[in-house]
Amino acid sequence: MKLYGGIEAGGTKFVCIIGRNPEEIIAEERFPTTNPTETISRAIEFFKPYRDRNELEAVGIGSFGPVDLKKDSPHYGFITSTPKPGWRNVDLLGEIERGLSIPVTFDTDVNAAAYGEHYWVVENSHMDPFIYVTIGTGIGVGVIINGALLHGLVHTEAGHMFIPHDLTKDPFPGMCPFHGDCWEGLATGIAMNERWKKRPETLPNDHQAWDLETDYTAYALVNLIYAYSPTRIILGGGVSQHPTFHADVREKILKINNRYLQSNMILNDIDNFILPPALGNRSGGLGAIAMAIEMNKDK
Amino acid sequence: MKLYGGIEAGGTKFVCIIGRNPEEIIAEERFPTTNPTETISRAIEFFKPYRDRNELEAVGIGSFGPVDLKKDSPHYGFITSTPKPGWRNVDLLGEIERGLSIPVTFDTDVNAAAYGEHYWVVENSHMDPFIYVTIGTGIGVGVIINGALLHGLVHTEAGHMFIPHDLTKDPFPGMCPFHGDCWEGLATGIAMNERWKKRPETLPNDHQAWDLETDYTAYALVNLIYAYSPTRIILGGGVSQHPTFHADVREKILKINNRYLQSNMILNDIDNFILPPALGNRSGGLGAIAMAIEMNKDK
Repeated sequence: MKLYGGIEAGGTKFVCIIGRNPEEIIAEERFPTTNPTETISRAIEFFKPYRDRNELEAVGIGSFGPVDLKKDSPHYGFITSTPKPGWRNVDLLGEIERGLSIPVTFDTDVNAAAYGEHYWVVENSHMDPFIYVTIGTGIGVGVIINGALLHGLVHTEAGHMFIPHDLTKDPFPGMCPFHGDCWEGLATGIAMNERWKKRPETLPNDHQAWDLETDYTAYALVNLIYAYSPTRIILGGGVSQHPTFHADVREKILKINNRYLQSNMILNDIDNFILPPALGNRSGGLGAIAMAIEMNKDK
Repeated sequence: MKLYGGIEAGGTKFVCIIGRNPEEIIAEERFPTTNPTETISRAIEFFKPYRDRNELEAVGIGSFGPVDLKKDSPHYGFITSTPKPGWRNVDLLGEIERGLSIPVTFDTDVNAAAYGEHYWVVENSHMDPFIYVTIGTGIGVGVIINGALLHGLVHTEAGHMFIPHDLTKDPFPGMCPFHGDCWEGLATGIAMNERWKKRPETLPNDHQAWDLETDYTAYALVNLIYAYSPTRIILGGGVSQHPTFHADVREKILKINNRYLQSNMILNDIDNFILPPALGNRSGGLGAIAMAIEMNKDK
């Protein structure tokens, strides 16, 4: 039985996995995202022995972005307007394809994670729309609607939505280089660090930082609920791992919704509506493997 | 050749159309939405002669909401938690079905309008996602993604998204009975009327009302663009018919996006990206007819 490769190409680190499913992971490596040449070479070197022994069938990539997902574009598979130094206009898909000479499929990191949580955890349960939200060094949203990942003009960038920002309560101007105080500008782990001059994980539970952070998250999730009408939300990323984060966000969502949407899932079962990732920190990598398996079926 | 019926059941008025397509409209009636008994009877009376002559094949309804779209729910086809007096828990689909005894299909008013603009105007052009936004006495968003209308847990309620609200610039608290200053609470024609004590169409072009209104619309549309990654946005409704509204909103969207999303459609072709409804004030009714035609095909 053949093996598949998954790459979660994050802006901070790369996660490379070889396996067949969440229970059969053969090899895994995590390394920091430095410059493109070094980082991509390291990913190729990780997979190469398996490719050389003819064990590796295909590879999936879930990449940080923005990326070009238009299959007819000359820049398909490129990272495009990222502010990350050195990574603008990098042909990530092409480099991996040329380095391994096997089929490679490509999507955003958050779409791969949404796909992984859906494919390995709830497939066949008709959870559609299904959304994956990560709040860490960036904020991203991956979306499955009507049976397929949401692509469209570019791909969803819901992490950059504008949400209410009360400057008297929070004078921090936001740090998104494009938008200032969009959701990502206000509420990443980096924004928390910048605002309070402390790393988020060192801020005590009763620090106002968490009240503000769960406010922003709750408003943003209400926006996502109103926009996508999801049947399940997976909420992950480093910031969301704070002990009372999930409970506080759920409570605030109920307050903000104020019984407008009267779905039983929201009003009476919110603990099963918004959940942490079942695949932990492997949602993206295992989602990329699922993408590779499905691409291979289509051939 | 058989005829089809379309009902745009709006909170202010009902539009009933009989025909085959936008070029073959046989009959049309518009009347105010009063109490459910009177209004629904009037709709049934309009269609009945055609049904009695066995000319009417099926009817589609696009309804104000929130509505229940779950086909397995005992309240499928009901209007649910609406603040509109008398209309809560009204079985709109059932009343029309029982009144006419022909097949009837049902969706939200904005989904019907999105479907109509897509079906009659751009079908086969691979415009997906495709979104329809109306700003009038309410604010609604209808969405087609991956080939089908967006339903999910309830249905999209993106008109109630939260957007930035600068209380020093605009002390108006918003008038959404559930959310206060959500988009709909801040920016319907009714909110404009309440804020400025003048009907929107009487406010001169250089009145600050329009600057504020196009601000809110631009922020909300940027949120929709980031959420759905649409390939086309239809922007309609009474408020959007103000002469410089479309041009001002487009310009502000470019400023807010600040070259973050670098799609050519946004940066260089925004006049073909955001358009008024091609079907004018018949998007909903003709969309409901298209829904009826498609339901009939499936039989």
